[in-house]
Amino acid sequence: MKGYLALDVGGTKVAAGVVTGDGAVLSRLRIPTRDLRIGGNPLARLIVLGQEALDAAGGRPPAGVGITLPGPVDRRELRMRAAPTIPEFEGLPLAGALEDAFGCPAAGDNDANGCALAEARFGAGRGYSHVVYLTVSTGIGGGIVVDGRVFRGAAGASGEFGHQVLLPEGGPLCDCGNTGCLEALASGRGIAARARLAQANAPEGTAPRWSRADLTAEVVAEAARAGDLLALRVWQETALYLGLGIANAINILDPDVVVLGGGVATGAADLLFPSLREVVSRRCMPSLRRSVPILPTALGADVGLIGAACLAMET
Amino acid sequence: MKGYLALDVGGTKVAAGVVTGDGAVLSRLRIPTRDLRIGGNPLARLIVLGQEALDAAGGRPPAGVGITLPGPVDRRELRMRAAPTIPEFEGLPLAGALEDAFGCPAAGDNDANGCALAEARFGAGRGYSHVVYLTVSTGIGGGIVVDGRVFRGAAGASGEFGHQVLLPEGGPLCDCGNTGCLEALASGRGIAARARLAQANAPEGTAPRWSRADLTAEVVAEAARAGDLLALRVWQETALYLGLGIANAINILDPDVVVLGGGVATGAADLLFPSLREVVSRRCMPSLRRSVPILPTALGADVGLIGAACLAMET
Repeated sequence: MKGYLALDVGGTKVAAGVVTGDGAVLSRLRIPTRDLRIGGNPLARLIVLGQEALDAAGGRPPAGVGITLPGPVDRRELRMRAAPTIPEFEGLPLAGALEDAFGCPAAGDNDANGCALAEARFGAGRGYSHVVYLTVSTGIGGGIVVDGRVFRGAAGASGEFGHQVLLPEGGPLCDCGNTGCLEALASGRGIAARARLAQANAPEGTAPRWSRADLTAEVVAEAARAGDLLALRVWQETALYLGLGIANAINILDPDVVVLGGGVATGAADLLFPSLREVVSRRCMPSLRRSVPILPTALGADVGLIGAACLAMET
Repeated sequence: MKGYLALDVGGTKVAAGVVTGDGAVLSRLRIPTRDLRIGGNPLARLIVLGQEALDAAGGRPPAGVGITLPGPVDRRELRMRAAPTIPEFEGLPLAGALEDAFGCPAAGDNDANGCALAEARFGAGRGYSHVVYLTVSTGIGGGIVVDGRVFRGAAGASGEFGHQVLLPEGGPLCDCGNTGCLEALASGRGIAARARLAQANAPEGTAPRWSRADLTAEVVAEAARAGDLLALRVWQETALYLGLGIANAINILDPDVVVLGGGVATGAADLLFPSLREVVSRRCMPSLRRSVPILPTALGADVGLIGAACLAMET
């Protein structure tokens, strides 16, 4: 069985591992992203990590190396077009260095497309030909996989489900500069911001005593599970917004399945999935409502590594 | 040059013609849809019309026959799954009858996908690889063409741009049963309904004296061109809703070009295009804003015929 070297570079963590052609993870190593900077050459450190992952899996040369990156990627040279969380990589062509270091072809893409491919091939989307993948964490991203390949659009920028405008007038400001985007409403930060606002507007004595500075989606989820009505309403609204975003994606793309991942969606699956499915079944085109399953991710923490390997297999 | 027999069946008009492989229309005949019923067998009458179109182009046997239909189509047997405007065709398999009558392969799809293909191959989308087509008339439909082929989704129901929900809470009721859809807001009927509402809510003496019963998007367009402020506001809102719908489609699909057709968009192009382009450039993901041109259709009244021929060429 051929092994692919997978590099999953995130804003906070970096993983390297060897993944087989059928999606089995033979080795995995993880370090904080900031540790890439030790020694002053993040790319050189990443290559060392990759070599360690190969050694841990028996040392055989890889059939390919795949990398997922936390931002938009020019795929030809594996050059990040913007890299706010790892500015050392912005504009740096990675393909040549990786190919030289590991003696095999290199491929890569942004993390959302990698995860979409991983879930479509080996995760919750396995067996479906048209897969829409959404990730809800700090932001909201996504990817589209058709017949085992990422549908990338004209400039490799498709699947920006998080930047659908759901509130035409007003709505919170989004990082993209727009207002009323799904991401500004239903990402981890969006949820925290709405909870903060709800707290501020609640009548004296009725709001939970959240510390406004530390307020996260997780804190709001705990409060909802403890029965706090304001927190429950925040999650209900979140399910409405995510459900509408998913319904719109279904109306446009007509997928077989929608897979929902990311820290926020996974961590609050109990609060989100039932109401979200209800919203989709009510707000989607009747002919499309039929039975598009909305499933949680199935690959857990390995999704990024498997996604990186899938990108290497795709070439 | 091979000729394709094209049949464009609409809710009010039916056209038949011969179209060459490079999109030139060699013959065209048009009758009202209700005249298909004369004689009691609409399919037989349609076949006669097709034969007349072939005769008018010189009588050579066609390389294929293509048909566009006003509703969702099961493409294998060319069976309309729903046909509100031509109930005689609902559930009737057309492929066998057309193949037998004309001695060539038959292909077809709903009209939006046909028009999308025609504009992508021979119209405003020519030379672009990823084309999004929206039609704004009585309703709002659309199609997606990638590398010269319709992107149909899992069940042939992609491109329902009109049923994006733009108003999460409230908003007018849509024909699909949902509320707040783009179609309910910005189709011909949606525009007339909003104008009627604006008229009803305007202070005494300030609203134009439209007859509420006959109010159409065209009447509102004429009033706007004459400087009526209420009508101008209705068109500005229409451009906002359509612009957001197009921005969302760009965010999800990342096309090279958006082509906008249909009676309402074409008839009020002067009122729509400038503000609509401004909305898209303001409300799209910054990385996608770049320069997606938003163009009016280029094929005029022949778009349906050329679309039907394109479907025949696609097989």
